[in-house]
Amino acid sequence: MSAIGIDLGGTKIQGVRVDHDRVVSDVKVATPTGGVDEVVAAVADCVRRLCAQGGVTGVAGVGVGAPGVVDVGTGDVVRAPNLPGFEDRVALAAKLGDALDGMRTVVDNDANVAVLAEHRVGAARGSNDVLGVWVGTGVGGGLVLDGRLRRGPVGGAGEIGHMAVAGVTRRCGCGQVGHLEAVAGRAAMEAEARRRHEAGEQTALVELAGTRRMKSSVFAKALEAGDQVARQLLDDAVVALGMAVASAAALVDLELVVVGGGLADKLGAHFVGRVDQAVRARLFVPTSPLRVVPAALGDLAGATGAALLLDE
Amino acid sequence: MSAIGIDLGGTKIQGVRVDHDRVVSDVKVATPTGGVDEVVAAVADCVRRLCAQGGVTGVAGVGVGAPGVVDVGTGDVVRAPNLPGFEDRVALAAKLGDALDGMRTVVDNDANVAVLAEHRVGAARGSNDVLGVWVGTGVGGGLVLDGRLRRGPVGGAGEIGHMAVAGVTRRCGCGQVGHLEAVAGRAAMEAEARRRHEAGEQTALVELAGTRRMKSSVFAKALEAGDQVARQLLDDAVVALGMAVASAAALVDLELVVVGGGLADKLGAHFVGRVDQAVRARLFVPTSPLRVVPAALGDLAGATGAALLLDE
Repeated sequence: MSAIGIDLGGTKIQGVRVDHDRVVSDVKVATPTGGVDEVVAAVADCVRRLCAQGGVTGVAGVGVGAPGVVDVGTGDVVRAPNLPGFEDRVALAAKLGDALDGMRTVVDNDANVAVLAEHRVGAARGSNDVLGVWVGTGVGGGLVLDGRLRRGPVGGAGEIGHMAVAGVTRRCGCGQVGHLEAVAGRAAMEAEARRRHEAGEQTALVELAGTRRMKSSVFAKALEAGDQVARQLLDDAVVALGMAVASAAALVDLELVVVGGGLADKLGAHFVGRVDQAVRARLFVPTSPLRVVPAALGDLAGATGAALLLDE
Repeated sequence: MSAIGIDLGGTKIQGVRVDHDRVVSDVKVATPTGGVDEVVAAVADCVRRLCAQGGVTGVAGVGVGAPGVVDVGTGDVVRAPNLPGFEDRVALAAKLGDALDGMRTVVDNDANVAVLAEHRVGAARGSNDVLGVWVGTGVGGGLVLDGRLRRGPVGGAGEIGHMAVAGVTRRCGCGQVGHLEAVAGRAAMEAEARRRHEAGEQTALVELAGTRRMKSSVFAKALEAGDQVARQLLDDAVVALGMAVASAAALVDLELVVVGGGLADKLGAHFVGRVDQAVRARLFVPTSPLRVVPAALGDLAGATGAALLLDE
């Protein structure tokens, strides 16, 4: 089977063409900021380019991974605050299908499709009970239970970023107190670094980033340079990830945890190894064979998983 | 179908005979303290009495709900620290089958079978994604996802008592810090009440219990009498239950939460209503229709669910 997959992000649109579970071509464009119609047109353009690019078989359809809440049944994006124009419900599958002469179109949450990809063709191949944890600007997640993507009654499953962490009192972007994302998300760490800087602490994080966004590479560089604030923030993130993943394992029992996302990818296998230790030290069933491993598909996980939706 | 169900507890053995999903008779005896053989003999005796008591159809077998870690495949109790003699692996299904002339025997965790019962014939009938939370000496739980009991790769699923709660720093009986059970379990609340009493705070909890175990009825009475310490401990328990259940809902997405167990049953619907509010205030998907309701089967949930294992 050949299918097109699109990872529709707040800053970029990543597209791939997948033939028999293998990525054969890919495209990337900046996400337009002019609203829904522009975004749909840009996605349709990516799809047409990928259809034109090689592959001997026909294309079965296009799958889209979108940030935020997705109604998988209708293919509507219910709410995606990080996509301009998607603050309210958008019938994305229908609009995209219209723009593509009726091509089959399915939509799911971006974190869900990324774990689907790692499960089918990435680091979690062969494991039946898998949690994907995506550490980037925020902390997202997706869950495969008994070999199938878990969506849940309102499509809300997998949100490990909004699980509580012991001892934490910081407020999360969602309004609640003490969530994982409030400690381990890049944006929350940036906010904390700037708070400490304003309170008089010296940190390479602010020196390197200046007034611009504190990118994942800034955290990697500051850590390498031995910066104390960066070290403390990442130590806290590792402990929080350990607690939240151990909570998840206590609730559903897991075989494998895959850690990816912009910040985790940039910090590399050493960071994921530390999370593995933090999780294992906290498992309620100490004989559990649970392991934490780095994601294998990097930037293309979302788009690849979106394509795999077509023969899920 | 007719089946025998046994809830094998640390202090009592509760047995029921279930005909076509309905309890038709029940027995209760104290759990012997002399070790495995005595316990097996007492359970076998209960089974024989229930087989002899009425019911026109034959008995398909016996299901047992046991505390602790159970290997469902073999019917072994891997570790049940609260059962004298069950500190190490016991081949309970095999021993009980031998004692009962080869009768079919299955074993599962007691919290799992209780949620199975509430799902099949109790408060969660008709719901497909259900968490059972059992608030007693500790805090146990069980999970039904997509209409089926979730056990997980090592049979460890459902342990909500060992999920982390934000802001909590108290140590749990399992050795970790900040778990739900360390705040909302009866034993943990008793320990905290005695600590405060020794530090000079007056509380009806210690006056009522004296040096004996602080039973659930003691908490109910102290609360009714307006005792401040009892009120604070239960307020903290409600908040912790709200956070842990909201974390569970963020991870797996739930339709219904059933709250039971000795302490919850004694405190009644008002307590469960407070937990419902605490959960709803913390849901990550605010449009989720999740509700928290009291368990319907009371003391017989475990034994009933154990019987239902026979035609799971």
